[in-house]
Amino acid sequence: MIVVIKSGTPAREIERISQELNSWNVTPEKSAGRHQVVIGLVGDTAALNPQQIQQLSPFIEQVLRVNQPFKRAALEFRNGEPSTVFVGTSSGVIAFGQNCPIVQVAGPCSVENEEMIIQTAQRVKAAGAKFLRGGAYKPRTSPYAFQGHGESALNLLAAAREATGLGIVTEVMDTADLEKVAQVADIIQIGARNMQNFSLLKQVGAQDKPVLLKRGMSATIEDWLMAAEYILAAGNPNVILCERGIRTFDRQYTRNTLDLAAIPVLQTLTHLPIMIDPSHGTGRAEYVSAMSRAAIAAGADSLMIEVHPNPAQALSDGPQSLTLKQYEQLMQEMAVIGKSVGRWSETPISTATQNTIHLQELALRVS
Amino acid sequence: MIVVIKSGTPAREIERISQELNSWNVTPEKSAGRHQVVIGLVGDTAALNPQQIQQLSPFIEQVLRVNQPFKRAALEFRNGEPSTVFVGTSSGVIAFGQNCPIVQVAGPCSVENEEMIIQTAQRVKAAGAKFLRGGAYKPRTSPYAFQGHGESALNLLAAAREATGLGIVTEVMDTADLEKVAQVADIIQIGARNMQNFSLLKQVGAQDKPVLLKRGMSATIEDWLMAAEYILAAGNPNVILCERGIRTFDRQYTRNTLDLAAIPVLQTLTHLPIMIDPSHGTGRAEYVSAMSRAAIAAGADSLMIEVHPNPAQALSDGPQSLTLKQYEQLMQEMAVIGKSVGRWSETPISTATQNTIHLQELALRVS
Amino acid sequence: MIVVIKSGTPAREIERISQELNSWNVTPEKSAGRHQVVIGLVGDTAALNPQQIQQLSPFIEQVLRVNQPFKRAALEFRNGEPSTVFVGTSSGVIAFGQNCPIVQVAGPCSVENEEMIIQTAQRVKAAGAKFLRGGAYKPRTSPYAFQGHGESALNLLAAAREATGLGIVTEVMDTADLEKVAQVADIIQIGARNMQNFSLLKQVGAQDKPVLLKRGMSATIEDWLMAAEYILAAGNPNVILCERGIRTFDRQYTRNTLDLAAIPVLQTLTHLPIMIDPSHGTGRAEYVSAMSRAAIAAGADSLMIEVHPNPAQALSDGPQSLTLKQYEQLMQEMAVIGKSVGRWSETPISTATQNTIHLQELALRVS
Amino acid sequence: MIVVIKSGTPAREIERISQELNSWNVTPEKSAGRHQVVIGLVGDTAALNPQQIQQLSPFIEQVLRVNQPFKRAALEFRNGEPSTVFVGTSSGVIAFGQNCPIVQVAGPCSVENEEMIIQTAQRVKAAGAKFLRGGAYKPRTSPYAFQGHGESALNLLAAAREATGLGIVTEVMDTADLEKVAQVADIIQIGARNMQNFSLLKQVGAQDKPVLLKRGMSATIEDWLMAAEYILAAGNPNVILCERGIRTFDRQYTRNTLDLAAIPVLQTLTHLPIMIDPSHGTGRAEYVSAMSRAAIAAGADSLMIEVHPNPAQALSDGPQSLTLKQYEQLMQEMAVIGKSVGRWSETPISTATQNTIHLQELALRVS
Repeated sequence: MIVVIKSGTPAREIERISQELNSWNVTPEKSAGRHQVVIGLVGDTAALNPQQIQQLSPFIEQVLRVNQPFKRAALEFRNGEPSTVFVGTSSGVIAFGQNCPIVQVAGPCSVENEEMIIQTAQRVKAAGAKFLRGGAYKPRTSPYAFQGHGESALNLLAAAREATGLGIVTEVMDTADLEKVAQVADIIQIGARNMQNFSLLKQVGAQDKPVLLKRGMSATIEDWLMAAEYILAAGNPNVILCERGIRTFDRQYTRNTLDLAAIPVLQTLTHLPIMIDPSHGTGRAEYVSAMSRAAIAAGADSLMIEVHPNPAQALSDGPQSLTLKQYEQLMQEMAVIGKSVGRWSETPISTATQNTIHLQELALRVS
Repeated sequence: MIVVIKSGTPAREIERISQELNSWNVTPEKSAGRHQVVIGLVGDTAALNPQQIQQLSPFIEQVLRVNQPFKRAALEFRNGEPSTVFVGTSSGVIAFGQNCPIVQVAGPCSVENEEMIIQTAQRVKAAGAKFLRGGAYKPRTSPYAFQGHGESALNLLAAAREATGLGIVTEVMDTADLEKVAQVADIIQIGARNMQNFSLLKQVGAQDKPVLLKRGMSATIEDWLMAAEYILAAGNPNVILCERGIRTFDRQYTRNTLDLAAIPVLQTLTHLPIMIDPSHGTGRAEYVSAMSRAAIAAGADSLMIEVHPNPAQALSDGPQSLTLKQYEQLMQEMAVIGKSVGRWSETPISTATQNTIHLQELALRVS
Repeated sequence: MIVVIKSGTPAREIERISQELNSWNVTPEKSAGRHQVVIGLVGDTAALNPQQIQQLSPFIEQVLRVNQPFKRAALEFRNGEPSTVFVGTSSGVIAFGQNCPIVQVAGPCSVENEEMIIQTAQRVKAAGAKFLRGGAYKPRTSPYAFQGHGESALNLLAAAREATGLGIVTEVMDTADLEKVAQVADIIQIGARNMQNFSLLKQVGAQDKPVLLKRGMSATIEDWLMAAEYILAAGNPNVILCERGIRTFDRQYTRNTLDLAAIPVLQTLTHLPIMIDPSHGTGRAEYVSAMSRAAIAAGADSLMIEVHPNPAQALSDGPQSLTLKQYEQLMQEMAVIGKSVGRWSETPISTATQNTIHLQELALRVS
Repeated sequence: MIVVIKSGTPAREIERISQELNSWNVTPEKSAGRHQVVIGLVGDTAALNPQQIQQLSPFIEQVLRVNQPFKRAALEFRNGEPSTVFVGTSSGVIAFGQNCPIVQVAGPCSVENEEMIIQTAQRVKAAGAKFLRGGAYKPRTSPYAFQGHGESALNLLAAAREATGLGIVTEVMDTADLEKVAQVADIIQIGARNMQNFSLLKQVGAQDKPVLLKRGMSATIEDWLMAAEYILAAGNPNVILCERGIRTFDRQYTRNTLDLAAIPVLQTLTHLPIMIDPSHGTGRAEYVSAMSRAAIAAGADSLMIEVHPNPAQALSDGPQSLTLKQYEQLMQEMAVIGKSVGRWSETPISTATQNTIHLQELALRVS
């Protein structure tokens, strides 16, 4: 952080400001030019608030942050190398990252009954998905809307895993449910509305399962990385970032504005893998294909797509869900782009693939 | 809800659509004109999704929502009469509502130590505040920033109440902390970042203390009223809405954009009382006075203002906190506007005032 | 502007950067501390782009702007004193500024016919307005909507001025119409959609009539002041800034979000007078009263309100127009707040008032 | 448009409303169900304002727009078929549209001197671009920034065309300059800041050159199509829509948020061709490649990319400009995606290609 002193400030006042800054656990270091004095703050400035420093003296022209406020999430934390998040599933370990094939996640907004979730799991697996998504606890705008089947839906997800070997991604909304969710989920999802539910972030950071962190609907890139930092700082290094559309002034034809530029921006800021959710990102099934293809071309590491055997009867998010057939079609469209950028794996999940590693291998790799 | 059928649709298809709609727990009622057929849906349409209905048939032109999706929060729910939220405090009952004097809430962002909270409480009470605000659990963007003193801060708030008789407003961030918070708080605050933490909303709705519901930073008025609806539907009728600034494209000089038009808009939509928080709304102490005066002129029922004995040393939100002296000055400025609109009460909290009622009286009123 | 050099940068590279900067018409001045070197840029940095400087070398950590990019619009340009804009009208000179009574501007969105404009002028004058607004050239979203009566409407405005002595405010949309508009207008309005029509700004800056500059619907405060700077730089010092609502994510109940915090923010940045337009700011007649009162309480120097003899039949903007009777009522409501803050003048325009000065007096003042 | 009448409304009032509506040049048609009456409005409702109709009676529940307010821009106007915009250049006719190869437009933000514009033109042509972009008149936020070389820059563009045969795209900012610009431009650009400069839209609509209409930075898709409608309604059918990023709450790492979902959305609404400008869309050269690839994968018909021989010395928009070498590299990256979706043409401009048609052929096609 740099404190710019107004020209003409008495030396005594500069001295006083420096002493005040000393008491804030940083080392002030003065750089004096002919007309200008600046005080650089050396040390851990992540928790300092520039505006508060400004209040120390009317002779402070401006306080400017030089470093980013996130550390463990920063690309520099891994010396510029992207990290790979390995997720153990019953079929092997799946890797998310820039050097891995794109990982496909698919499934319904909410788990409605056994038949639909098993059927969906089988079909999306056959189409090439590695993970099944499905909500047990559902954040809904209206208290009168379907709120998810809760614990019983978790059991259905477990059954779908058993039937197919797919990994399971499901959302936790409350610290009180975390243990139950973690027993079933291979990846625990934090939804957009809970991106700054800091109690929840701390707790998913203090357990072992990888975490999928959705971007809040008005979260800046920096807010989002700071939320990831909560999880990382609590001890869990396995965070996947998921862009799912931000809220803007135009909501007539799409539910959100999918910010695909987040992909190259994040790649310059963080080592964490990036997933795109074009279903929430647009809110309309007919726009999912174009945005899925675009996401792959832009460099996404993973896609999460809502699929439902009968969207017109879905208990939630029907309008943005693809039918099973549409999903199969979409996979072919995505494959065209995925192959052209060299990140497509056709091998089914049951055999060893570039991004499916058995746990023994992983032990070797990690050690 | 109204389903507009395309002109030229075969009668058989209209019949089929009606039958489908029948299965959704609403009664479809056809209105046929010469060129146009519309199907009105009679019954509880609050949980229906217009876009999903549209998927029933390509012959549906459009599905239009006529009624608002909130019910208990709606002005009609009280036949157009604003409600008054009565809050019991150790000094008597304080009333929030359009027919009451403006209620002043003041205090630091976070409770830092006993001396500062007691001193602040005494001074803001002397200046005319009826409630002390102060955070024990603090939602902070950075995991490295001060997170609040938690339970021990709750004890300090209890001490400040004992010392002054002020009511206490403090935030709950996690369902696990609700019981502890409710023991100290006279009003439980749900922060902007938790406005759509539906688990938390349900639980504050299932207990007795009045709830202060802050608007999420990208929540529409409708989202906000639906969040209030969660609390109301869970059984707690005592909800106060607090506008604290929304996130817009311009964040250079203010932290948020304070949406004061929310006041007249809410007055046409809901019976719930409205509080304004100009401290978070602008993020800068120097703008608080103008926006406080404006809030009163626009019809706010209550104001919440951040005050700190020494903002430059505050552990959080220093730049937007007033000094104790500035708060006293602000109260005089607000009084000018408050008196001009007939909603200012000078009487100190210890004697009976128009908006301080003893519990016995309340029992009479309510019965 | 300050160029922060990365620690460990070779002296030779710092030298090279300094030499490059020399060629940009600014004087680089090095300040070296123990770990940190910064280069301050002395001179006219208003036209420099920080990001471009950053590209000079990979050893540049960050480039930070210290000064604001506007000069003539800055409060410092007048040594911290607000300026007063004097507008000559057929009834005398009217003054806009922080030390003057609030100036009321009222009238229809567009000039429809002689009867309506004369009637409106007479009634708003009687109610206390000093200026009549009315559009001759109308910017409309749809090419099929009424586009204004153009030149003939200018003649009707002239007739209304003759009949009432009110000053005239009307919009120019095209440089080709400027001369015609300037013949009738006492204040020339630049609409929100033309706030960054730089050709138009230069031309209204090169003529003598005062200019009302509306804020663009997604203009930051800085963008807006830079637009004012265009007019000031072209030689016209008489600019009034008008906030009319910005575009945000919530457009369900209001057309725009009226940013009243712009008032105190602008007062810390610029000397120019500030007008508020609550009619466009909310887009709904029923919200105009609350926001007008709030604007006055927040410190607005002027209000512009849409009034129409029969809003239901208005050719444009009917939903946000008050009836003549509603306007009279509003004036009484505004007077309550205006008097409480000491900025209300009851004296009719025909006699000398604090903010109506005859041209001779003005000559004395200005000389 | 549909007028929903409140249940329990007296028949006489329904009659009165119908009669009022009759006077608005539409035919009201009543549809009565058991509980509900709606009045459909048959005729040209494009210019009607739903809120204004609502004011006709307190018995009106809601007024709902069924049809889109744009007509000539609507996909239905061409029976669901995308249109192709043919642009005559000195090397032949280039076609923009969904059934044509992607058209590449490249060049500097502003034309600085002969050498740089000729060199850029030659290199981007060699790389595969069909059009040279370059600003003669530049809209700049600051009046102190370089404003473009104006007329002399137009001459340099003409020279670059002569030297290379590239088509020319350049911006007009003022109706007064239109004739001059049209003499040199093969496509006339309307910039984002002028998207609702309706005088300018009418005039470019009244001349023959194709028009590139950039989306305003806070324009909704509907606003944008209405702006296109102005040009179409004035008689010019050759409009290309260009998305260049919208303004949102997050502006820290990108200048704008590139709304790529506009591509599939527009494809369901309009027949007009779609161009993407990732340079303004992100504001940073390092993000241009990812977003260019994404735009192609999403279905863009054309790309416009800023290229400068020496971005660090560019007089405007340096930070978002690619070097000539970077552009050549980008073309290879785009080709990978372009070929995979079957919309890439390698053939140089000088020989006949699928999207380069000689004027004689065009005459045949069009006739």
